[in-house]
Amino acid sequence: MRTIFWEDNLVKMIDQRRLPNALEILTCRTHIKVAHAITDMAIRGAPAIGVAAAFGLALAAQNSPAQTPAELRKELELASTLLKSARPTAVNLAWAVDKVLRFTFSESESLSTEALRGRVLTEAQRLADEDVEINKRMAEHGSTLIADGDTVIHHCNTGALAAVDWGTALGVIRMAHEQGKRVHVLVDETRPRLQGARLTAWELKQYGIPYEIISDNAAGHFLKTRQAQKVFFGADRVAANGDVANKIGTYMLALAAHDNDVPAYAVVPTSTIDLSLATGDLIPIEERTPEEVLGLQFNGERVAPANAKARNPAFDVTPNRLISAIITENGIVRPPYEVNLRKVKEVI
Amino acid sequence: MRTIFWEDNLVKMIDQRRLPNALEILTCRTHIKVAHAITDMAIRGAPAIGVAAAFGLALAAQNSPAQTPAELRKELELASTLLKSARPTAVNLAWAVDKVLRFTFSESESLSTEALRGRVLTEAQRLADEDVEINKRMAEHGSTLIADGDTVIHHCNTGALAAVDWGTALGVIRMAHEQGKRVHVLVDETRPRLQGARLTAWELKQYGIPYEIISDNAAGHFLKTRQAQKVFFGADRVAANGDVANKIGTYMLALAAHDNDVPAYAVVPTSTIDLSLATGDLIPIEERTPEEVLGLQFNGERVAPANAKARNPAFDVTPNRLISAIITENGIVRPPYEVNLRKVKEVI
Repeated sequence: MRTIFWEDNLVKMIDQRRLPNALEILTCRTHIKVAHAITDMAIRGAPAIGVAAAFGLALAAQNSPAQTPAELRKELELASTLLKSARPTAVNLAWAVDKVLRFTFSESESLSTEALRGRVLTEAQRLADEDVEINKRMAEHGSTLIADGDTVIHHCNTGALAAVDWGTALGVIRMAHEQGKRVHVLVDETRPRLQGARLTAWELKQYGIPYEIISDNAAGHFLKTRQAQKVFFGADRVAANGDVANKIGTYMLALAAHDNDVPAYAVVPTSTIDLSLATGDLIPIEERTPEEVLGLQFNGERVAPANAKARNPAFDVTPNRLISAIITENGIVRPPYEVNLRKVKEVI
Repeated sequence: MRTIFWEDNLVKMIDQRRLPNALEILTCRTHIKVAHAITDMAIRGAPAIGVAAAFGLALAAQNSPAQTPAELRKELELASTLLKSARPTAVNLAWAVDKVLRFTFSESESLSTEALRGRVLTEAQRLADEDVEINKRMAEHGSTLIADGDTVIHHCNTGALAAVDWGTALGVIRMAHEQGKRVHVLVDETRPRLQGARLTAWELKQYGIPYEIISDNAAGHFLKTRQAQKVFFGADRVAANGDVANKIGTYMLALAAHDNDVPAYAVVPTSTIDLSLATGDLIPIEERTPEEVLGLQFNGERVAPANAKARNPAFDVTPNRLISAIITENGIVRPPYEVNLRKVKEVI
């Protein structure tokens, strides 16, 4: 099953907030509902929310009462603004929406409003299909970096759930496993949303890949005591210089890998590379509700004192010096990233 | 109220597993119950478990049917072995038990069994009183490092709850606050046992010190974006070269501080310095039950998939190169630690 798909003129997605305790499908009838699903993290992961936004645009086109191409274009531009603002850090959201709009209105003005509606859906569907293809190519490139017997540390969820299928970093691990390599995964919990303990562990269980959950705090110990040979994560945006914005905690994990000469790999489709930003400092960092931190339960009770405050940045920026390589569908990119990321983007 | 105290010939302690939702007193009638309370973390924190073990020995002496000094000594030695094995990493446990035994049997052999029993309690009580005094001196030394307006990141719980009163790193922060300095604390949760979110937040609330809880993963982001000026933590054992064993996650936090030229301070009584171990690699690291990781709840449900496995090292070792200074009751120790830790131990 794909994480997100178009069926009966509706957008359907696995509701990731309910995993691993229930596998439920969330149905969206409007692009506004899709935007909410992205903001509320019913669907998450940079590639997945890109495709979700594209399908959201297809819903907006389908539901629009527009009579003329100009009216439709105006409505889709409004819908795009809404969908792009659902989450700020992952560049895939804007990338996908812009791509669908560009494709839709790239033909001569002679197309009918109805034909344009069809083009929105065609392109959204194509992006979804292409995502699976791209992820498989990333996985093939990345799997060459995993040796038989490796233990790898994995941050957040970057699997099929984070994309349409396969995923980014977890796709690499899955591919190595399918190639017959013995690979063991230390899955960090990934506070505060626990995508590691909830989603990555669930996926690894489906694939039959051996894993153990660790607290985020423990990664340094396993690296320092030589119990892990590689570190893998995805990214929400890569700047032109190779700085990587990814789920909060990536920076500390990459620091610990670097301090122990363990390679740390970011696995991203080229759509996640944003050449318009020179460095990671320019990437907007989403701060989410304190409740994600404060709502934690322990022994059935809330952990934090009543009225406690919290800060909750959802991403951090890992400087390029800590990134051993960036794995894309077009190949493995090594430093100097300023030069080589540009090259890998231009392959397309 | 003290964290642990002797009353009505019983050992009483705040049950830290129930905080912040309930303030309950756990009563121990036997040294075996004290050992269990230490293992199960009803009481935790290196100084606190040292005093708990000393009081445990006082219970063993009181409850012993020994008729002769030799019989009593043999029983207390057995009790010591049990108490020392309650947790392996903090050296204070062995230090306190050995100190009580040495004091008890240091006089001429002419003392009666009953007098010896009294000496055990006297010394345990003295250690408890001394702990408060030592912590206040640490707090005074350490508070000179905090500037008015500082935001500090604090790991685990090192407050009054981790000692008899005041505590180590949190004692420093509290002293700075009482001196009228404005200090803001970013309290990291400290997975898996959440001593930060549960205990440190609760203590800061009592003291009226402003704080915000952050996930452990977020510390790097706050350091990199210059939102924190100092990092403070305690320690469970400091090796002769200044390597620091402390609550899991300290190493990654210290790495992030170092990467951003933010000073990271360990606050410890000299009893936590173990000159018998040349480096931190020799410190035994406790691995606790996977259930501490797997038992986490989210939306009222367990997070990890059924039958998931976990690894749960409770401590890590931070290399001396990442420690800016070690604050003790005898003063602030700077590198070279091999020389200066020896000096500060010898002051006593």
